Amino acid sequence: MRNLLLTLRFDGSGFHGWQVQPNGCTVQQVLGDALERVLGRREAIHGCSRTDAGVHARMFCCNFRTEHAIPAARLPAALNFYLCGQVAVLDCTEVAADFHARYSCTGKTYCYLIRNARARDPFLLHRALLKPFPLEAALLEREGQAFVGTHDFAAFCAAGSSVKSTVRTVRRVEACRDGEELRLFFEADGFLYNMVRIMAGTLLEIARGRLEPGCIPAILASGDRANAGFTAPAAGLYLWKVEY
Amino acid sequence: MRNLLLTLRFDGSGFHGWQVQPNGCTVQQVLGDALERVLGRREAIHGCSRTDAGVHARMFCCNFRTEHAIPAARLPAALNFYLCGQVAVLDCTEVAADFHARYSCTGKTYCYLIRNARARDPFLLHRALLKPFPLEAALLEREGQAFVGTHDFAAFCAAGSSVKSTVRTVRRVEACRDGEELRLFFEADGFLYNMVRIMAGTLLEIARGRLEPGCIPAILASGDRANAGFTAPAAGLYLWKVEY
Repeated sequence: MRNLLLTLRFDGSGFHGWQVQPNGCTVQQVLGDALERVLGRREAIHGCSRTDAGVHARMFCCNFRTEHAIPAARLPAALNFYLCGQVAVLDCTEVAADFHARYSCTGKTYCYLIRNARARDPFLLHRALLKPFPLEAALLEREGQAFVGTHDFAAFCAAGSSVKSTVRTVRRVEACRDGEELRLFFEADGFLYNMVRIMAGTLLEIARGRLEPGCIPAILASGDRANAGFTAPAAGLYLWKVEY
Repeated sequence: MRNLLLTLRFDGSGFHGWQVQPNGCTVQQVLGDALERVLGRREAIHGCSRTDAGVHARMFCCNFRTEHAIPAARLPAALNFYLCGQVAVLDCTEVAADFHARYSCTGKTYCYLIRNARARDPFLLHRALLKPFPLEAALLEREGQAFVGTHDFAAFCAAGSSVKSTVRTVRRVEACRDGEELRLFFEADGFLYNMVRIMAGTLLEIARGRLEPGCIPAILASGDRANAGFTAPAAGLYLWKVEY
């Protein structure tokens, strides 16, 4: 049995996230449909994470096992032929039999794109969070350093999650500005449900003056979701990099 | 009578160009509708150019005259409230009575965005021209220098144009690469109908080896549209800058 790893990029604004759902169109669904047209059979596809509805992926990885003999190098063009324009397969490689896109993953980076201007940008529709008030990248980055390290992130996890442990290791929080665009990067060994969105929302509330600078360690220690900031919207959030 | 200059940005992929048409939605139409809702009256809007269907504008200027007293600084937010997400008003200023967005214009820059990769990018859907064959920015820029200067561009003008003179002055042709994205900039005092698209198509045919390097001066001299390259598609073309 061959094990194939696909690297995707998708605009999540028209999807109900990655994972197949009874109601609504998902990336896993359309990719599975395209794969079935190429291979002539339905194969189970394992994604590196369940992205929320509206979340984008500059890089997303998934794998599937098949007996089909199609060369890996031919799969991207074959799949892109059947996929809608919102999803693209960038690469395909053969991987070890025990590789799993989710369980073999050693690290992920998410990016929040914030348009810091008064007027929206038509080219960033559904692709950035519009924040008209002044935002200082240095402040966001400085406050974000409180997330770096191994912590219990229970306060930054949405209700309804069923994970065994809420301990994660955040490796990097970085903010950089390019004109009216501000990017917030979060790199970790893994993320809890809505963790990036709550961390971003908390930093934005500090920048807005609604939460005190330096408040993050106490919120982490409390373990209480109610103490953290709002859940920033999905539009503007990108799965940026997946590491194995 | 006040004369107001608006600076817009629009994603042209859903529009039949700038100018109002009996069939199809145009930017001038939706802007006029929004302006009527804000001012309570219909005003004539003069655009800096007629962009083709599907062409984008990073910067587009237009002006209108009105007796309405609304402060210029309040207009962008008021108009954006009524405009669809594909069009945004970035700025509004009061200008001299004789100012006309088209006739007062002293220069324009267009940019062609080319994705030079095998797989498409979902974030550039309808926003870039996909070219999978190798493209060398230095070659495109070198060949493009033949356009710079004052020439009769009849060979680079689509049929059906009714201009008095086909002489234009191209000030700059520049190609630069950023990873898999290649940008071609054309700056001139003005452009003929489809001129940028035919210049870009000609450069791409030289890069592909379908036209000889150094052929542009002879094509210009011939004055014959049939000798130039293909008309590059609208997707990927941006009105980049408008000067007064």
